[in-house]
Amino acid sequence: MNTYLVTGAAGFIGAAIAKRLISEGNNVVTIDNLSTGAVENIPKGCIFIEGDVYNPDVLRELNQYEFNGIIHIAGQSSGEISFSNPVYDLKTNTQATIQLLDFAKRKGVKHFVYASSMSVYGDQQKDFVSEDTVPCPKSFYAVGKLASEHYLRIYSDFGIKCTILRFFNVYGIGQNMKNLNQGMASIYLAMAIKDKHILVKGSRDRFRDFVYIDDVVEAVFLSVKDEHGQKFDVFNVSTGKKQTVEQVITMIQKNLPYDISVEYVEGTLGDQKGVYGNNSKIKKKLNWKPNYTFEQGMEKMIKWAQELNF
Amino acid sequence: MNTYLVTGAAGFIGAAIAKRLISEGNNVVTIDNLSTGAVENIPKGCIFIEGDVYNPDVLRELNQYEFNGIIHIAGQSSGEISFSNPVYDLKTNTQATIQLLDFAKRKGVKHFVYASSMSVYGDQQKDFVSEDTVPCPKSFYAVGKLASEHYLRIYSDFGIKCTILRFFNVYGIGQNMKNLNQGMASIYLAMAIKDKHILVKGSRDRFRDFVYIDDVVEAVFLSVKDEHGQKFDVFNVSTGKKQTVEQVITMIQKNLPYDISVEYVEGTLGDQKGVYGNNSKIKKKLNWKPNYTFEQGMEKMIKWAQELNF
Repeated sequence: MNTYLVTGAAGFIGAAIAKRLISEGNNVVTIDNLSTGAVENIPKGCIFIEGDVYNPDVLRELNQYEFNGIIHIAGQSSGEISFSNPVYDLKTNTQATIQLLDFAKRKGVKHFVYASSMSVYGDQQKDFVSEDTVPCPKSFYAVGKLASEHYLRIYSDFGIKCTILRFFNVYGIGQNMKNLNQGMASIYLAMAIKDKHILVKGSRDRFRDFVYIDDVVEAVFLSVKDEHGQKFDVFNVSTGKKQTVEQVITMIQKNLPYDISVEYVEGTLGDQKGVYGNNSKIKKKLNWKPNYTFEQGMEKMIKWAQELNF
Repeated sequence: MNTYLVTGAAGFIGAAIAKRLISEGNNVVTIDNLSTGAVENIPKGCIFIEGDVYNPDVLRELNQYEFNGIIHIAGQSSGEISFSNPVYDLKTNTQATIQLLDFAKRKGVKHFVYASSMSVYGDQQKDFVSEDTVPCPKSFYAVGKLASEHYLRIYSDFGIKCTILRFFNVYGIGQNMKNLNQGMASIYLAMAIKDKHILVKGSRDRFRDFVYIDDVVEAVFLSVKDEHGQKFDVFNVSTGKKQTVEQVITMIQKNLPYDISVEYVEGTLGDQKGVYGNNSKIKKKLNWKPNYTFEQGMEKMIKWAQELNF
């Protein structure tokens, strides 16, 4: 029986990963500060430590465990919020990652999987991006993600295998429908269901590469299981397909039984026009592929959201 | 009369810049935590606030001034130390820079000049590096410098002109001869004078691009005066010439009137093999050029150091 630390298991992605690892017979410990996550999201059987990863007292509680791997998902995840509180963003993302890497080094943890983000790319002349595209972050959040990637690359020299997964736009069942700062699909869907009106911050021709939560969990699972592979590697977790804001909204309108009005206002600071991700590397090296089309994923999510009380 | 904030004016580079600005008839305010700098280095006439730039109480003391520009030099500057205390390194470099940028934004400061470092390049296949070479930092210190550069790029969108100067190996009169963690020329020279023995951590064929302190001050001065130029720009402050460790030592041996023995031991973590910097951009855009050859600069420095009591 293996033991894993999954940070942020009270959040959308962390909870899904923890659940999968537990269901496959592993022990899972999590740290979560419950700032945007909710305690009821933490899967049954998961050992929960409440607090910030960047708090040394919280990390000290981990000393009693021997981890086979760390999957670091926690962190504030809104580009918009990173502008209103850049120091908090730095602490909860970059500083927390450093402290967790330092813990891994001290404890001899063999493998560290890090949730990075497509946001590191910013906007690019060639909007179909590969792992070797030179990053150009547009938000403070994205700067912190990129800095964390560099810290991981350096820590991999200390004997920790470090795998970076650049998640594109993750969506699906379990996404926080109350958080209107993070998640394009969930934000629009929440507004559509609550208000029958979608307020879009930014242009309709922005686009995203949407990857379904189950596919993201599979990518993490394959990374964790991968015992070969390089001591440091970076993968896009993407579908290689783009959906414009307009297409997302049309999809929501088509799947809801009432009319939804749409209003476009000025965009938020640091928002990307869009990139979509070449996924040939993760397909080849980890034998991953996305199982959900955007249509399939959104249909599932919209059904779930309509029955949800939020 | 203009007023400038020069952070770190108790240190080698900051003191020289503050002195020059004062001598040209400007007011200068400085913040320094005196962790490696010394209060007696702070030039006469400079208003001194003691503390850390990342401390909000310290920054609050700046509210009474109207700055024409900020020249941000302060920060722990040893790659080696960044490994023993990465969180302190992050705070004193990256977090401090964010807070100072935030101050500049709130106060409407028009120009922010940032002391970055050749360390952002790491080691490169082509070791003659230009500003568009893709950075690959090898130390935590360098990761923080690169992250700070990205923060500046984003802040430049808020109406602050941001100029990044990537200092190569700065050396010369005034360098801290007691600090054996920072500054290749000063470390070897200090050992040679004190012990008649140089302990070299790392190989003799590593090399550096040494730029004399007066030339660095001139680069900063030209940046500060440059009222045109782009809202965001990055410049190598380099000579375009490389000196190996062996050449540096030979130069010291040649200029001291006694025999110096040399011992090579294992290198320090994250130390670069070497890069040297293409300086055609700063020559063209800021009309800067280095006035000191390495021989000229070292002769001056060695004479000065021999008379120094350290």
